[in-house]
Amino acid sequence: MDLLYFEDFTPGEIVQYGDIEVTGGRIKAFAEQFDPQPFHLDETAARDTMAGGLIASGWHTAGMLMRMNCDNFLNRSAAQGAPGIAEVNWLKPVRPGDRLSVRRTTVSARPSASRPELGIVDFTFEVLNQLGEATMTQKNVILFSRRPAGEGAAR
Amino acid sequence: MDLLYFEDFTPGEIVQYGDIEVTGGRIKAFAEQFDPQPFHLDETAARDTMAGGLIASGWHTAGMLMRMNCDNFLNRSAAQGAPGIAEVNWLKPVRPGDRLSVRRTTVSARPSASRPELGIVDFTFEVLNQLGEATMTQKNVILFSRRPAGEGAAR
Repeated sequence: MDLLYFEDFTPGEIVQYGDIEVTGGRIKAFAEQFDPQPFHLDETAARDTMAGGLIASGWHTAGMLMRMNCDNFLNRSAAQGAPGIAEVNWLKPVRPGDRLSVRRTTVSARPSASRPELGIVDFTFEVLNQLGEATMTQKNVILFSRRPAGEGAAR
Repeated sequence: MDLLYFEDFTPGEIVQYGDIEVTGGRIKAFAEQFDPQPFHLDETAARDTMAGGLIASGWHTAGMLMRMNCDNFLNRSAAQGAPGIAEVNWLKPVRPGDRLSVRRTTVSARPSASRPELGIVDFTFEVLNQLGEATMTQKNVILFSRRPAGEGAAR
């Protein structure tokens, strides 16, 4: 499959992809390692918290977003990394049985002033549940190599 | 141990805590689940990338920060959640053998205008390696319950 370069990301484009089913077992396994709070660890304990039941760590949801991004475009792209994250908002709880997907909006795209071989693409990612509700949004830039002269468009 | 309430976080306070040793096995296990890119998955493949060797997913580092925060103050606090993250910057690679700790700065603290039982604390977290270098910084607010009248200070 052809690589996606900087030139393949068009401001205003919105695409949707991914399908991860969230399970109680995965919520708890993540929490035991990275976020051991009662509402992520145990159904019974979670019922007595503000969460009202087991919910995924926000960092677990962020990890699932990363996985869907890798599987659906990053790993077939000329991505050169992301310097960080501009913003994460956790909007709705993610619970066992939820099915998550991603809606990606390309906000802007510009060549790098300091590194002409790279372009900078600004994305908004929304993690949607099976009802189409945004459970989390994330804004960040990703750097991509520019398409080498003579190589055709990937799509 | 007494709970930490909103009143226990003083703007300007800097504290350091945590000690997680990063292993190649844990870097790869995280990446297989959440960030399957070559420089997170395999030492040999990583050598030929811009990373120059195996490095931890930035989301893995964020998870390790969350774990150190839970173990060292969140899980003995009256925290009422975090609405999101204002900023994450990945500054230096995290590699097998690194030992990570956290430097937490309390930036500001104010009572919630809409929910008088809560206070809003603004933190900067730096994830330091064994050389004292910041590998990642993160800024976010955490909500805490205010200390009930008549309860003494936790420290």
